[in-house]
Amino acid sequence: MREVAILGVGQTPVREHWELSVRQLAAMAGRAALDDADLDRVDALYVGNMSSDRLSKQANLGTAVADQLGLWGIEAVKMEAACGSAGSAMRQGLLAVASGEMNAVLVIGVEKMTDTLGRETSAALATAADADYEVSQGITFVGLNALVMQRYMHEYGYQHSDFAPFPLNAHANGVKNPNALFQQAINQKIYESSRLIAEPMRLYDASPIGDGAAALLLVPAAKAPQAVRVIGSASATDTLAVHDRHDPLWLAAAEKSAHQAYRQAGVGPDDIDIFELHDAFTIMAALSLEACGFAERGEGVRLGQEGAILPNGRIPISTLGGLKARGHPVGATGLYQIAEVTLQLRGTAGAAQIDGLKTGMAQNIGGSGATIVTHILQK
Amino acid sequence: MREVAILGVGQTPVREHWELSVRQLAAMAGRAALDDADLDRVDALYVGNMSSDRLSKQANLGTAVADQLGLWGIEAVKMEAACGSAGSAMRQGLLAVASGEMNAVLVIGVEKMTDTLGRETSAALATAADADYEVSQGITFVGLNALVMQRYMHEYGYQHSDFAPFPLNAHANGVKNPNALFQQAINQKIYESSRLIAEPMRLYDASPIGDGAAALLLVPAAKAPQAVRVIGSASATDTLAVHDRHDPLWLAAAEKSAHQAYRQAGVGPDDIDIFELHDAFTIMAALSLEACGFAERGEGVRLGQEGAILPNGRIPISTLGGLKARGHPVGATGLYQIAEVTLQLRGTAGAAQIDGLKTGMAQNIGGSGATIVTHILQK
Repeated sequence: MREVAILGVGQTPVREHWELSVRQLAAMAGRAALDDADLDRVDALYVGNMSSDRLSKQANLGTAVADQLGLWGIEAVKMEAACGSAGSAMRQGLLAVASGEMNAVLVIGVEKMTDTLGRETSAALATAADADYEVSQGITFVGLNALVMQRYMHEYGYQHSDFAPFPLNAHANGVKNPNALFQQAINQKIYESSRLIAEPMRLYDASPIGDGAAALLLVPAAKAPQAVRVIGSASATDTLAVHDRHDPLWLAAAEKSAHQAYRQAGVGPDDIDIFELHDAFTIMAALSLEACGFAERGEGVRLGQEGAILPNGRIPISTLGGLKARGHPVGATGLYQIAEVTLQLRGTAGAAQIDGLKTGMAQNIGGSGATIVTHILQK
Repeated sequence: MREVAILGVGQTPVREHWELSVRQLAAMAGRAALDDADLDRVDALYVGNMSSDRLSKQANLGTAVADQLGLWGIEAVKMEAACGSAGSAMRQGLLAVASGEMNAVLVIGVEKMTDTLGRETSAALATAADADYEVSQGITFVGLNALVMQRYMHEYGYQHSDFAPFPLNAHANGVKNPNALFQQAINQKIYESSRLIAEPMRLYDASPIGDGAAALLLVPAAKAPQAVRVIGSASATDTLAVHDRHDPLWLAAAEKSAHQAYRQAGVGPDDIDIFELHDAFTIMAALSLEACGFAERGEGVRLGQEGAILPNGRIPISTLGGLKARGHPVGATGLYQIAEVTLQLRGTAGAAQIDGLKTGMAQNIGGSGATIVTHILQK
């Protein structure tokens, strides 16, 4: 297999983009990635997206976006793995280039979530959980994660306030990212006094929805010696329903995909300088850090308390705001994460730039830990 | 790139499977393919499906089906390209094995369409057309194809009755397929007197929806020297909206993907012994035959009139009923087609078996000719 490099990066701000259709939004990010790579033609387009058929009445989004970009004739398809859709599209783009069949693949993640009534968007999001055995019982996605957080606090003796460093760091970093949905810092008091949304979870434990698109242009590394390279890539699944897991506090699919990616890359957690993780909920940030080997079981929260997750810490996370402050347009998130790691490794992350980075990791999660995709990049 | 072989084939009958959920239906076909290949573990599962998030309230279907099959831990993702979803999943499975990264990939196409009210299913199907510029004008999918058929009849001087050989052949062949939704032959009078659904199209010009799943197990050809091999595979797109095309009577994406596949395989139309085409509507059968080089422009209908499409003809099509009689569970169809060609090449197509076959082709279409995937197989 050939090594693959990221030649182009594009993203739109995460906003309520009521003036743009889903294909226009995707095309904006795609065009930016093509321009960044100085290419105007690719062999294929893979679009990560969860719900355009429900929320924008448009299926076959791969072809719709290729059409919008004027890339008539190319291969195009949509990949869906709930909130892990964009990471999954990245995997397929990588395989297509690595296989030798394709020399340039554009991958775009996009989600348009604010054009419909809130309950319609919530109903679409609920389809990421197990329809037959979770959703049919009336539980929401927030509720599922709240149960996991409750159990974690009980098991390891934490208070709600102990989780504050995650959203505080994310919001502080979001201030430095012009594409972030929220560019305001928050403090401990704001976090703790925000309204309860599903006990013990409060508003600032959850990431916000939004409209956005992010794109990458992938080429063989041999053709772009200066570009950031993908040195590890893996995807793994767990049971769809949280209650079917041996241990609901352990992200087995994160462990599996991270360790496969480590092996491919020939690195370990100690070599990772920056980690864009899937902080859809504060509890998920803690669990990801543990499953990927940055903390012992039950110690993920301590990395926050010790400051290790800050930009100047041992393992900076959510460096451009994360899902929490950049925003979580679900089917786009996985590519925002990889785009952000790429910009950090390039040294072009603007006010959020962290110096001296060599190796970065991005991890995208679909469902409540059901589908987890990990990528490791190196400059 | 490594050559890829089809080691296992599985399919469910196309029916109204009200007793099965979408993941159960998919798992039935997947389990059959695993059993046929005598394997119980694969590296990845790619699921082709269009609308499970709308019609069964279940997104992240790749992981849901992996879970149902007990294949915990493996990589899984859903691919969507409207009615071309299963062919697109096949493409990705092929690339994953060809790349050398994976040694066994299960691809499953599935659609569950009869659990909801008809208008809900119709609304889901409409998302395959251009939401912004076609559907918003009130046109249906049947209506779009009726306009194309009308234009074809006007341009080349055909009558509605001239298209009869397509459904007559499909229904006659469906009688020999126990998995077919319709196992009754029809005659010219039944075809011509069936009710008008969108002028000039009558009921028997359109394929029926249904619930069904088909699956293939892909491995490197070197590990299965006796198995049917995939010698050509390509996917191409056109404009999403029919009105944006230079010539609405020419399937440019069919021509492009077929010719790429011919080139890879080192064959031409004269070498193809059997062709499972996408006869969602009679007009599409004629247009596919023309675009793939089996007939001159405007002459596709004549292949029907001359009997060339019959089991004993020059280029047999819809040999197990096609979309018209086997049924069209949209996201599953592309894999039913490849499964059927595989069975024919193996010599295990039962009463529908055609003798002396060496090379077969399958072509899957998403939208009104917007996304077209072609595969060429050889024993």
